[in-house]
Amino acid sequence: MEKFNFDEKINRFATDSIKWDAYEDTVIPLWVADMDFRSPPCIKECFDTRINHEVYGYTHQPKGFKEDIVQHLYEQYRWQVEPDWIVIMPSVVSALYAIGKNCTSNQAHIITPNPVYHHLRIAAEESGRDYSEAKLENINNRLLLTSNSLEQVCKRNTELLYFCNPHNPGGTVYSKNELEKIIDFSITNNITICSDEIHAGLVLDESSHIPIASIHEEASNHTITLMSLNKTYNFPGAGLAWAVIKNKELRDKTARGIGNIIPDPHLFSYIATKSVLDHGNEWRIALLNYLRQNRQLLIQAVKKMSGLHMYAMQASYLGWLSCEHIDHIDPFKLFLENGVALQPGHMFNSKGHVRINIATPKSNLNEALLRMSKAISENAREND
Amino acid sequence: MEKFNFDEKINRFATDSIKWDAYEDTVIPLWVADMDFRSPPCIKECFDTRINHEVYGYTHQPKGFKEDIVQHLYEQYRWQVEPDWIVIMPSVVSALYAIGKNCTSNQAHIITPNPVYHHLRIAAEESGRDYSEAKLENINNRLLLTSNSLEQVCKRNTELLYFCNPHNPGGTVYSKNELEKIIDFSITNNITICSDEIHAGLVLDESSHIPIASIHEEASNHTITLMSLNKTYNFPGAGLAWAVIKNKELRDKTARGIGNIIPDPHLFSYIATKSVLDHGNEWRIALLNYLRQNRQLLIQAVKKMSGLHMYAMQASYLGWLSCEHIDHIDPFKLFLENGVALQPGHMFNSKGHVRINIATPKSNLNEALLRMSKAISENAREND
Repeated sequence: MEKFNFDEKINRFATDSIKWDAYEDTVIPLWVADMDFRSPPCIKECFDTRINHEVYGYTHQPKGFKEDIVQHLYEQYRWQVEPDWIVIMPSVVSALYAIGKNCTSNQAHIITPNPVYHHLRIAAEESGRDYSEAKLENINNRLLLTSNSLEQVCKRNTELLYFCNPHNPGGTVYSKNELEKIIDFSITNNITICSDEIHAGLVLDESSHIPIASIHEEASNHTITLMSLNKTYNFPGAGLAWAVIKNKELRDKTARGIGNIIPDPHLFSYIATKSVLDHGNEWRIALLNYLRQNRQLLIQAVKKMSGLHMYAMQASYLGWLSCEHIDHIDPFKLFLENGVALQPGHMFNSKGHVRINIATPKSNLNEALLRMSKAISENAREND
Repeated sequence: MEKFNFDEKINRFATDSIKWDAYEDTVIPLWVADMDFRSPPCIKECFDTRINHEVYGYTHQPKGFKEDIVQHLYEQYRWQVEPDWIVIMPSVVSALYAIGKNCTSNQAHIITPNPVYHHLRIAAEESGRDYSEAKLENINNRLLLTSNSLEQVCKRNTELLYFCNPHNPGGTVYSKNELEKIIDFSITNNITICSDEIHAGLVLDESSHIPIASIHEEASNHTITLMSLNKTYNFPGAGLAWAVIKNKELRDKTARGIGNIIPDPHLFSYIATKSVLDHGNEWRIALLNYLRQNRQLLIQAVKKMSGLHMYAMQASYLGWLSCEHIDHIDPFKLFLENGVALQPGHMFNSKGHVRINIATPKSNLNEALLRMSKAISENAREND
C-alpha cells in the first residue's frame, strides 16, 4: 500500500468548499485551483499541536522562517537568495494588486499575458495604469510569452510585466533560453518583472522550474518573484505567500501596506508553511507521481474527444483545453449541462477554452472525462 | 471549581507570541492587546473537527454567517441590521486603511481622536488626505470625544471621522447622549463616521455598549461600523472582522479591494467566529467577571503609586495611565527596566502615558503591579 492515498474520495461537502458548493451535488467540480486530496500529514500534526495550546494571540513569523525559505529555494532551484530579500505576505493575489500600484508611476503602462490567471489581468486593470495584454504564442503546443509577443504591446512607458511561470492556465514551464529572452527584453526596456511562480513545486515534466530572477544578477535586480506553498501542499484556505526581491527600492515599495491594509498572515499560515518547508517534500514527490498519471488519463481522453485540443501541460494540475473546434457557443455550459464544472475560458480572457483541474481521485476524474466525452459526442450528433 | 479557569498561567513561549517574545523572559509583558487566557472551548472544538478533515482548500463564509451576525447584534445591542449591510473583512485594521482612501475624495480632510489606537491615526496619515487629531476631553475622568473637540479641528472639507468606542486606550464607553452629540455634529457637517467598535463585547461597567449607528436611521446612513470577535474571544492570530454599512454607496466603496489586495479571511477565521457567535457568550460572561476583578486590582494598586493616574476603564482589558506627575522622562522605560513591558504612550500620540493590558492571570498581574510600584518608589527616592 502506498504511504499516501490519493485515490480516496474525501467528502468535501459541509466544509464550506468554494469548489464543491458552487453547483448541484451531482456535478463533478473541476474548476477552482485546489486539490481534493488530504494535505501532507505534517500539516495536521502541526495544527493539532498548536490548537492544543488554545491561546491564539498575535503571532510573528516562526524563528528562522526566512532562512528556511532560503534553504528551500536553494535545494529546489539552486537559487541563492538572502533572507533580507524576502517579504512575507498573506497571498500572491494580494501581492499582485499591491505591486501594480506600488511599483509603478501614475503614467506607467503595464503588460500582462493572455491568456492568464485572471488576477494578473485584473491587477493591471485595478492599478489605474494603462495596460495591454501580450498574446502568448503557441510554439510546439506550448503557450509561451516571447519577445515577439512583448514587442507587439510594449510602449515607451511600460514599467511592469506580469509574468506567470509555470503558466496558469496551461502549465508551460519556461526553459532557460526562453526566460533569457524575456529578461533581456525587460532589461533593455527597463521593465520590472513581477513573476508569479506559485506552481513552481508542481512541475510534472522532466524539465525543472527556473526562477526567472535566478538567471543572472541583473535579472534578479529587475524581478519580484512571488511564491507560496499553498498550491503545492493544498492549504490555500490557510495559506501565505512570499516575495523575493533583491532590489531594495522595489522591495520597500512592494512591502508598503503590509500590516495595515494588507493583513499579516495568520498563525496557522505560518506553521503550515513552516511544516511543509521542513517535512513536505516526500509527500510532494508522491503527489507529482499521482498527478502525472491523471495527466495521462486526461491526455488519452482528450485525444478521443473530437474537436477538443489540449496544450502541453508541463506543470500544475490545471489543463488548458481549446474547444474552438467544437460546434457550441459556450463549451463551459456544454460540459456543465453534462455534469462537469470546469473553469470557463473568459475568466482568462480567452473564449472557446476551458481549464480543467485534475487534482482529484482517478475515479472522479475518469467519471468526469466520460461525461465530457458524452457531452461532445451528443453535441456533435445534435449539430449533424 | 469554576467552569473556566482564568487563573492558570499558560506558557506562551514557543508559540511565536508577539507579546511574549519581544523582551527578556524575565519581563512581564502587558502590552500587545491579546489575552493570556485560553480561548473558549468551542473554538478548540471547531478547530479540531475541521483539522481532522485534512483538506484545507478555498473556503467560503459559513452558511448563514451574516444572519448569525445579525442575530448577535440584535441580542447584544438591540441593533436591527440586515445581512446585506454586512461586509466581511480579514481585520479591522485592514478596513481602517481601506476606508481612509476608498471613502474620501482626494481633497478630503479626516479627523481622528487623540489619544487613540495608533492605526486610527496612521490610517488617516496613509490615506494621503489632510487630517487633524481631535483632542479627547477629560470629563469626570472619562476621556471623551465631544462636539467641542470636533469643532476645534473640523474643516469645510472634513469628510471622515475615525471614532473608537469603547475607546482604546482608556476604555471609555460612550452614553447615548454623548453619541448623539457626535452624530449630530457629523450629520450637520456631512461627515462619515468610521466607528471602530472592536471592544464592544468587553464592557465591564453596568453601562451598555451602544453602536453609534444604532442611535437612529440617519446615524446609520452616515456610519461604517467595524466589529470583530477576535478581541473578546482571544483569537486575533486567526481572526476576521466585519463592517456594518447601511448606506449602499459607502458599502460598495468600503468593499473595494476585498478579494484582491485585501485577502478574504482564512477558513479558521470563519469557523472560529461562527463558533463563538453560536456558543461563546457563557465564556464571555465569565471572562468579564475575571477582568472586573483584575481591574479592581489595578485600580487599588495605582491609587498607591504616587504620581500615577488612571482614567475610567469602563471596558476592555486596556488601562490608560497618566505618568505626567512621575519625575521620569520615559515612564515606559522606567517600568521596563523594572521588569514590566507596557505600551508606551507615544504609540497613541500621547507622551507621559502608558497603556496596561490586564488580561493575564491575577498572579501575573499582581507581580507586575508590585514591580511597577517598586519602580515608582525607587524613582521617587532617586529624584528626591
